[in-house]
Amino acid sequence: MPLARIEIQDIRPRTPTGHPAKGSVGERIPISADILRDGHDHLAARLRWRAKGQRGWQVRPMAPAGNDRYQGWFEPTSVGPHEVVIEAWTDRFGTWREHTEKRAAAASPDLEVELLVGAELLEQLAPQAPKADRPRLLDTAATLRSTTCTERVKLDAGLDEHLGRLLEAVADPTDLTPSKPVAVWVDRERARFSAWYELFPRSEGGFAGAAKRLGSIADMGFDVVYLPPIHPIGVTHRKGRDNTLTPSATDPGSPWAIGGPAGGHDAIAPELGTIEDFRAFREEAESLGMEVALDYALQCSPDHPWVGEHPEWFRRRPDGSIRYAENPPKKYQDIHPIEFWPEQDSDRVALWNACRDVLEHWIAEGIRIFRVDNPHTKPFAFWEWVIADVVSRHPDVLFLAEAFTRPRVMHSLAAVGFSQSYTYFTWRTAAWELREYGEELAQGPGADYFRPNFWPNTPDILSGPLRDGPPSAFRLRAVLAATMSPNWGVYSGYEHVENQPASPTNEEYLHSEKYEIRKRDWAQGGEWQGATVDLTQFIGLLNRARRNHPALAELRTLRFHSSTNDEQAVVYSKTAADGTDPVLVVVNVDPVNAFKGLLRLDLAELGLSGSTPYEVHDELTGERFTWTGAEPYIELDPAVGREAHVFTLRTLTT
Amino acid sequence: MPLARIEIQDIRPRTPTGHPAKGSVGERIPISADILRDGHDHLAARLRWRAKGQRGWQVRPMAPAGNDRYQGWFEPTSVGPHEVVIEAWTDRFGTWREHTEKRAAAASPDLEVELLVGAELLEQLAPQAPKADRPRLLDTAATLRSTTCTERVKLDAGLDEHLGRLLEAVADPTDLTPSKPVAVWVDRERARFSAWYELFPRSEGGFAGAAKRLGSIADMGFDVVYLPPIHPIGVTHRKGRDNTLTPSATDPGSPWAIGGPAGGHDAIAPELGTIEDFRAFREEAESLGMEVALDYALQCSPDHPWVGEHPEWFRRRPDGSIRYAENPPKKYQDIHPIEFWPEQDSDRVALWNACRDVLEHWIAEGIRIFRVDNPHTKPFAFWEWVIADVVSRHPDVLFLAEAFTRPRVMHSLAAVGFSQSYTYFTWRTAAWELREYGEELAQGPGADYFRPNFWPNTPDILSGPLRDGPPSAFRLRAVLAATMSPNWGVYSGYEHVENQPASPTNEEYLHSEKYEIRKRDWAQGGEWQGATVDLTQFIGLLNRARRNHPALAELRTLRFHSSTNDEQAVVYSKTAADGTDPVLVVVNVDPVNAFKGLLRLDLAELGLSGSTPYEVHDELTGERFTWTGAEPYIELDPAVGREAHVFTLRTLTT
Repeated sequence: MPLARIEIQDIRPRTPTGHPAKGSVGERIPISADILRDGHDHLAARLRWRAKGQRGWQVRPMAPAGNDRYQGWFEPTSVGPHEVVIEAWTDRFGTWREHTEKRAAAASPDLEVELLVGAELLEQLAPQAPKADRPRLLDTAATLRSTTCTERVKLDAGLDEHLGRLLEAVADPTDLTPSKPVAVWVDRERARFSAWYELFPRSEGGFAGAAKRLGSIADMGFDVVYLPPIHPIGVTHRKGRDNTLTPSATDPGSPWAIGGPAGGHDAIAPELGTIEDFRAFREEAESLGMEVALDYALQCSPDHPWVGEHPEWFRRRPDGSIRYAENPPKKYQDIHPIEFWPEQDSDRVALWNACRDVLEHWIAEGIRIFRVDNPHTKPFAFWEWVIADVVSRHPDVLFLAEAFTRPRVMHSLAAVGFSQSYTYFTWRTAAWELREYGEELAQGPGADYFRPNFWPNTPDILSGPLRDGPPSAFRLRAVLAATMSPNWGVYSGYEHVENQPASPTNEEYLHSEKYEIRKRDWAQGGEWQGATVDLTQFIGLLNRARRNHPALAELRTLRFHSSTNDEQAVVYSKTAADGTDPVLVVVNVDPVNAFKGLLRLDLAELGLSGSTPYEVHDELTGERFTWTGAEPYIELDPAVGREAHVFTLRTLTT
Repeated sequence: MPLARIEIQDIRPRTPTGHPAKGSVGERIPISADILRDGHDHLAARLRWRAKGQRGWQVRPMAPAGNDRYQGWFEPTSVGPHEVVIEAWTDRFGTWREHTEKRAAAASPDLEVELLVGAELLEQLAPQAPKADRPRLLDTAATLRSTTCTERVKLDAGLDEHLGRLLEAVADPTDLTPSKPVAVWVDRERARFSAWYELFPRSEGGFAGAAKRLGSIADMGFDVVYLPPIHPIGVTHRKGRDNTLTPSATDPGSPWAIGGPAGGHDAIAPELGTIEDFRAFREEAESLGMEVALDYALQCSPDHPWVGEHPEWFRRRPDGSIRYAENPPKKYQDIHPIEFWPEQDSDRVALWNACRDVLEHWIAEGIRIFRVDNPHTKPFAFWEWVIADVVSRHPDVLFLAEAFTRPRVMHSLAAVGFSQSYTYFTWRTAAWELREYGEELAQGPGADYFRPNFWPNTPDILSGPLRDGPPSAFRLRAVLAATMSPNWGVYSGYEHVENQPASPTNEEYLHSEKYEIRKRDWAQGGEWQGATVDLTQFIGLLNRARRNHPALAELRTLRFHSSTNDEQAVVYSKTAADGTDPVLVVVNVDPVNAFKGLLRLDLAELGLSGSTPYEVHDELTGERFTWTGAEPYIELDPAVGREAHVFTLRTLTT
């Protein structure tokens, strides 16, 4: 027979697949639920949490948030699986107090009986209270027993002052109701807050040359250096320059066509150097405070060792041939897809283990972050298994899903285990699109488990205002990515305003670096309309603002404001989880025309009141302005190199 | 190890508590889910359903609805618990066909190999297909094996014509993935579609007098006659006229103060007649096609037999007294609340059984519908148990929850078992409020289990435009209740435009019938501003339209349209579940001023195209108009007795 008197429903966080929600060390992870019981008695609730395997629980209060919803939070201090239980009970003392105060106010004739009810209640609850509080509770019970109606004013004051607080956390054992445990996977902080820089080492002459770039990348404030596949590249059906099918003898091929006589996923392409060169590169990055992320691309060139050694891992057509891989509309004629579900289950197990062993190989080489290529073309069940398996031994390993696909699929990959995900940001360019997408990511159900990583460009994607775009387009998109999302990244060349599309209808780059070596003059900078252009310093300022202001490491506190031209300006703020450190960002999404107008700020979101003057400080230019009220006037004119403000705020005492 | 390749998520219907969703006999119950797998292969899905305990399953297809959502429906034919399972699989043939057609269009050199792939696939799937279809599949396989590229035009035609349809329902056993079973409780049709009339038999002179009213009530088209408690009324703390605490010797008391020397919840108040009179009343109602619903009010007057016999079922204060019942701000000084969770569990079991036996007593007397008084002041766990227990023996019994309380609590009561619920309609009077509430009920999560019953008035509530309101207010609120919700009801006197509130701040009636006998002159009618007024015929027309048009028995198809004055007019339509029988309702919510303007119809929702003329027929007045297009002009002027149109529609062939 069901016997719970209290219902705990609609608990968040949760995932659509039932897998653990996600949090990170040092993050305030919100916990909430609808908590209901019959009648009009008050309810109280708290949460207890612990890292899985720990014996003791930590306890935090939950507070009512209206409409029967209760909320609280916890802040984990270690990585790995955690569990949270919500506990609710009838607040009999609070109920009695409200009830009795009403009767006292109405001079009800049965007030004296009610005082005795209160005395009995205190006597009953006292044994649950901390030992130090018990005498006070029992004293009050005695007072209630001896109080007459005429003394009630004195009594009320006594009750209000101490007892409520004393009894707040005293759970009533008569109907203490626990929720089912909520599972939360806790990552290290970088899962939540990271700045990525992607580069092709071969364009720098291999690992040794690329290592010389690391100082500049660190100076720009990045903390993850991500390399496309570093493995031997196949020769059969190798792609030529500009994605052609007729390569010349010197074309290097796409790094994603993995595998050749020199080895497969655990080997290094000879043209990049040796394993020692790789180690030196990784050590240099780490000495500069950065991590190296590798590409985990589960596919094979026809020359990959697995093709010959494990024919059972590939699907053959009746004539013995293998279909090339596709991610419509893209065709990968130089790649065989792996058949992740061979007919024999033992083959599947062997294949999945081999894929896992590739990760273990690079983990043994000190790699802790993997950017996963097209995970949506491999089974969810594989990711669920391989990620859980790896993090059970290495809970600090992170996975970024490169799944540019349908929303439910992207969310499912995050739910079954990915730490971060690429997003639609790359194509969200209008102001309303950015607002809608930002709200969905920060406040939608995905906020429990889907961590966005905003990339203005990738080697595959040159989109929106960046196509043939001016430097202002590159600056404004960088500001949006770096301040709207706690995780962001750019692909090398962004700082040089590389802006030439493959064609008007193709969103790839002209002379894509995927198929050829691209030489850049890092000392000189890029070029735009005959002049030198270099966003290195600008990007450095952005990443510095991120590091200095905890608000920019938050996503859930993202709130949109308005302006006199909501089609041109995107206005948003964030605070740290505790509401401090407000940051206000204003971006003119038009890279050509100036925005001139009034902001329409929700001052409460910024911790400001309407009449107090406040100082805003632009983290990009160092300018300071003093404002009062919700409608300051601003101008953002790309013609003078000003597309955005990233303001920190300070209230001025008058 | 997890091994499902296909993910089935976010299945609807569902309830927030995990209890069965609700449907009714003859209803199309929608079933939907997100269905995902990796890659770009096509998916197919179907649902199978059965009454619990049946051996065989019935199967229906599901169709993609965009964004990875799939939907279907089933229509149960019997009451009781049902289960539904969604099954999804990779549509390998559909995938192959699309893939091959693209290759054919691009004159791909490996087309011939792909034809062999198709042949193998057909040979593999044939054993799953119905026997009669197998030769066709194998013939086609043979054709594919012998087809060359140059013959492909002929081939395409053959594939398109037959095979797709043939293979649509052939599940691929290699990855056929079932969902967890979805539980649906199926009620009889009246749970979904009913018109209630509430009356106090004592005001008609008891059961014998009330029986004489039944003919008129049936003529008005009602199918449920609901009686407030018919049990003996207590004398101790009896309420007097107008809810006073000082009754005269002749005041009859509130019927909700149940129990006295003549008995408790299984007895009949002597002033109403004998059990034989009650039976005759019930039989007369049934002979007129109506059912009698009784009030199930679990509370006791101080004179109820249980108070003396079962002191353990009441909570006593230290002085031995019992607190009176409250449903803030209402005070029931004449009622003791029952303590549903006595300290001894054996006492709880005995109490719950006694409460269940009250239901069984009246079920044995032929009652199948109970209106439950204040269920939100009794534990959810009690309702969960008692309703499940009763319907396990009597699956045709229905329960209407009179829980005017917070939304989450109302939803939880519906989720744990109530068949219908009172709603906020009684206080939703502005056009925007009605639209928002209608959309929430018809399309929100509650649509899976919460069946609204719209009451413009109750003996407790005279609200909004009805307070001192003109007949037009009563007509327009009746139209809204009867056409927006499949379940509706009125409390006796509505047809006489009884409109006097207890006071400007009290939403009860003046001289409430709860505390006194109210004589009405049914032959004469009511009175308004010196003239006779009687809405009997009007209500009859409304209920007739409901019976004649299946659209009005639907809630899920409710769609709101617009007009040139959305503050004054509420415009909505419904269709039958299969999209036929459109009904269009326009209500001027202002009982005084005329609405004159254009409607702005979504013609597609009405099954109309923009250029075809159509005839609308007002079910209330018999008028017919011929319209073309989405913006007809209408006038609704209360001054001439016209507040609403209830149109049925017919396309005219030109």
